[in-house]
Amino acid sequence: MNKIITISREFGSGGREIGKRLAEKLNFAYYDSEIINLLTKETGKTEEYIENISENGIYPYAFQFAKSFSMYSKIQKDQTKILVAQQKILKQIAEKGNCVIVGRGADVILKSYNPMNIFVYANTESKIMRCKNKRNDELLTDNELEKKIKDIDKERIEYHNIISNLDWGKKENYHLCINTSNLNIKDIISPLAKYIEKYFGRDK
Amino acid sequence: MNKIITISREFGSGGREIGKRLAEKLNFAYYDSEIINLLTKETGKTEEYIENISENGIYPYAFQFAKSFSMYSKIQKDQTKILVAQQKILKQIAEKGNCVIVGRGADVILKSYNPMNIFVYANTESKIMRCKNKRNDELLTDNELEKKIKDIDKERIEYHNIISNLDWGKKENYHLCINTSNLNIKDIISPLAKYIEKYFGRDK
Repeated sequence: MNKIITISREFGSGGREIGKRLAEKLNFAYYDSEIINLLTKETGKTEEYIENISENGIYPYAFQFAKSFSMYSKIQKDQTKILVAQQKILKQIAEKGNCVIVGRGADVILKSYNPMNIFVYANTESKIMRCKNKRNDELLTDNELEKKIKDIDKERIEYHNIISNLDWGKKENYHLCINTSNLNIKDIISPLAKYIEKYFGRDK
Repeated sequence: MNKIITISREFGSGGREIGKRLAEKLNFAYYDSEIINLLTKETGKTEEYIENISENGIYPYAFQFAKSFSMYSKIQKDQTKILVAQQKILKQIAEKGNCVIVGRGADVILKSYNPMNIFVYANTESKIMRCKNKRNDELLTDNELEKKIKDIDKERIEYHNIISNLDWGKKENYHLCINTSNLNIKDIISPLAKYIEKYFGRDK
């Protein structure tokens, strides 16, 4: 069976960087925005539309953008379609080979593939600091960033609640929970990769 | 500053084994039952008495064993005395050198020493399996073991609530949370030790 690592993460905790670097270190395929590209091909929808409703909360989006009941109903149908397509794509990815998948509820959707599920989190101060180094967030104030972090995580929780009855971020649902507050992510990749190798080697 | 690792753990999760092996690997001092010995010297109480009221819930013990109000009151005073002595001993340990401390709320009591706090947990099935390999627990049924695990963790939570307003086992209060379900603890020591070295080396 392929080795699948899923990374769930609080916004600003560096989970995506951990995922990318781990994939590189372990020589695993890496999937994050790649999934959006595959979804556009599968559904014929635009990247932006998919980005908004594939992970970032589904019903909130529909409420926000629908100007009429028929439009709301159409968005809802699209959301379901995209969710189904996303599940299909994640399973294709899991069949393909060893991989790291960031977000998208892969921990839940790929449960039958026995992934190693990692959760990455950090304290608010540290997440704000990390966001400030990102291109899109550098001009926001600390308060704006804190709000953005909370809002995005809320959307992730909502998405997770739709596809699963397991609580997002509850340590029991993950194999390892990493607090990146004040940590240099580059430093921990090598020991983490070794931990993961041991994790997948446990049955040998 | 000395490097201090605290290990909080669910009963049966293998946290003590992780602590012991990490201390050996890192060449750090290891403290667990050693603290009880130091407490007997400091307070003049017996080991058993201290064992019961130093970590395993304080007020429940007093209620259970006191046969009169004056006895209840005496036990309560002892408990406070032992708690104070334990705090003193933990601080002495922290001043002495690099160490691994298992349990006793060291994560909270030694906060000013900037310890690396690790939480070890596992699913119930895995904890029962681990307990069955212990000398004192091998004759218990699965149901009895499950009850014992729940009871001991409840006492740990109660103790933690007395010395701190931080939730025991909540991932935000730890730097790393390790799920040992189906893991061979021996296997993960080497990558964990490397992770810890990177953690403490983060400011260099």
